[in-house]
Amino acid sequence: MPLLVQKYGGTSVGSIDRIKQVAAKIAAARAAGHELVVVVSAMAGETNRLLALAHDISEIPDERERDVLLASGEQVSVALLTLALKESGQPARSFLGHQVRIATDNAYGKARILSIDSTKILRSLKAGEVVVIAGFQGVDEDDNITTLGRGGSDTSAVALAAFLSAQACEIYTDVEGVFTADPSICPEARKLARISYDEMIELASTGAKILEIRSVEFAKNFSVPVHVRSSFSELEGTWLVNEEESMNNVLVSGVACDRNEAKITLLRVPDRPGLAAQIFGPIAEAHIVVDMIIQNASADGTTDLTFTVPKADHKKALAIVERTLPAVNAQGVRVDTDMAKISVVGVGMRTHAGVAAKMFEVLAREGINIEMISTSEIKISVVVDAKYTELAVRVLHEAFIGKQETV
Amino acid sequence: MPLLVQKYGGTSVGSIDRIKQVAAKIAAARAAGHELVVVVSAMAGETNRLLALAHDISEIPDERERDVLLASGEQVSVALLTLALKESGQPARSFLGHQVRIATDNAYGKARILSIDSTKILRSLKAGEVVVIAGFQGVDEDDNITTLGRGGSDTSAVALAAFLSAQACEIYTDVEGVFTADPSICPEARKLARISYDEMIELASTGAKILEIRSVEFAKNFSVPVHVRSSFSELEGTWLVNEEESMNNVLVSGVACDRNEAKITLLRVPDRPGLAAQIFGPIAEAHIVVDMIIQNASADGTTDLTFTVPKADHKKALAIVERTLPAVNAQGVRVDTDMAKISVVGVGMRTHAGVAAKMFEVLAREGINIEMISTSEIKISVVVDAKYTELAVRVLHEAFIGKQETV
Repeated sequence: MPLLVQKYGGTSVGSIDRIKQVAAKIAAARAAGHELVVVVSAMAGETNRLLALAHDISEIPDERERDVLLASGEQVSVALLTLALKESGQPARSFLGHQVRIATDNAYGKARILSIDSTKILRSLKAGEVVVIAGFQGVDEDDNITTLGRGGSDTSAVALAAFLSAQACEIYTDVEGVFTADPSICPEARKLARISYDEMIELASTGAKILEIRSVEFAKNFSVPVHVRSSFSELEGTWLVNEEESMNNVLVSGVACDRNEAKITLLRVPDRPGLAAQIFGPIAEAHIVVDMIIQNASADGTTDLTFTVPKADHKKALAIVERTLPAVNAQGVRVDTDMAKISVVGVGMRTHAGVAAKMFEVLAREGINIEMISTSEIKISVVVDAKYTELAVRVLHEAFIGKQETV
Repeated sequence: MPLLVQKYGGTSVGSIDRIKQVAAKIAAARAAGHELVVVVSAMAGETNRLLALAHDISEIPDERERDVLLASGEQVSVALLTLALKESGQPARSFLGHQVRIATDNAYGKARILSIDSTKILRSLKAGEVVVIAGFQGVDEDDNITTLGRGGSDTSAVALAAFLSAQACEIYTDVEGVFTADPSICPEARKLARISYDEMIELASTGAKILEIRSVEFAKNFSVPVHVRSSFSELEGTWLVNEEESMNNVLVSGVACDRNEAKITLLRVPDRPGLAAQIFGPIAEAHIVVDMIIQNASADGTTDLTFTVPKADHKKALAIVERTLPAVNAQGVRVDTDMAKISVVGVGMRTHAGVAAKMFEVLAREGINIEMISTSEIKISVVVDAKYTELAVRVLHEAFIGKQETV
């Protein structure tokens, strides 16, 4: 029987009624002749509730214990979904990270999956059971509980699909698939039938919060076909696949925006070798992900150095930077949390020039000032004032995607 | 350094403020020169909240999955308490049942502890950490999560004290110790300074819900000194110890009542060999604990057979009994949930006659009819109409304990 891995997010298991609906969906897939491994997230709101408890105790909670705390959320949902499956007559069995043995490194809060033991899963499937696995969690080599970070259940699901050589990994979510832009901002946005892993990685890293970026990297590395679709409809969603020839005909597949970053600028730093290492070393040690970095040396031998970090980490990052200020001889530091990153993504850029020029022109026409620019082979991102977010997305979607039919 | 095991119940960790108070108590014990292993229950109300979720899905939830669900409650409290300890500068580390490896059999919902691996605990103590362990939970040999039943955290604590050869096991609870009767019923009730394990076992099985009975049996078998005391005061509570000579001078140490049982009577069953086995076999298989059994054969060759079960199990027991009715040829079945079991307990009974006679006389004087009687070496229990509960406790306390000073 072909094996499917399905993943249901927090909204899909957000109440007892929804859990029962998921159980019915699973029963239908079983009846259609699939073996099923199902990955679930914590019930919607639960992870935040637990985090708030931790923050009532400690501003920066110990990471090991925070992971023990958070992992309880998925424990509740696997138990409830398995109960619902059994209640409806469907043989099923739940597994936590340590029971499967989803082995990770010990980077609490952002652990990486190293390997997955398939023994118990295969035994359970052979016994005709639906295997229900807690997403987001694993154990390190000393049996400490680890979590994979926000959206980590996607990674759990794709990794399971890879290690079990599943036919496909279905990600059930509260949107209908991957759109050319956020439909709530841009009414002309359309659902993509297929998108390449690389484009999806760029979209995930530029604010389209449909899939966690690591899960897409995992899918790409193991060529796992991923089907992103809605829990609340039967419609086909979007397939994530290897790049296809026809995709190159489309210049831009999506326009994304991200308001969850903050900009930190070190003012008038003497421009000398080793500076960047001095500044970004301690930030990396604190596991803060720096996204964009821009430095422009000026004639007087000093430079303004600007970078962006997740808004949630900006206070931590600022505290670190302030400690390095004297050593790097900076004149001061400025923080801006009122910014947006707007990106256009498409594999077609590899073979077509002029996308950047067109993008800047479209934004200039609307009087939108560009504060930072960052590019990759298939993506161009610009930082603008947050108030222009919707306008920028709409005019770029109009200019690059318009009313054309997507693949 | 002498090792103490402390156990904090659900009320003691029922809010973030209380958790911080517990952390302060632990810090004080550390400062007083103790090594500490701390066992915690789920936050007050949490186990019931989780159970209600399970019952929204299934009337009789699958036991394996229910245990996975419930074990998440203690996971939350160990993480929060450990966070609070670390926040206050106290090195600490949490462990779940599977991490310690608290090995149990696989009787879900009422698992028995078979062994406890002390390796990680000792390593953590050696590193100067307070070891915080999730009560109530363990794992069977196949890594399935098991729970020990209501009050199971007491058993976890005592078992840990036994396996670690701790100096003592302190049970912190919301009462000040073991009383000669429930003070809310009997204002003259006094706190006992010391009580023998055997008396405590009888009190636990007769409704004094201070300690789970298994934990006391464990304490007795391993001679673990147990100190039952209040989380909210510094007062000495009650010590559970081996029987001491002086205890024999006290005829009755306590009067207990239990309104959590129901009585099931099979009417006019033909009185023949094998009857009891036929009736109680299936009930035992359903893991329902039968407390009292009474049978009185009458001259016409039939008998009324009466027994009591926990009120929570009485519907399940009734369903089982109804299935056996035709086979045993009973005329019918009657259920009474409006009953109370009143017990007097004391090791002095071993050497003093006449306690039963006096008990019956005291109750008769108040016009309280006795429906069932059951005795052990150090206990006499009677079943009466529930409306007499408080009256019976008060007159028996007056008659046997009165204003005498307890040991």
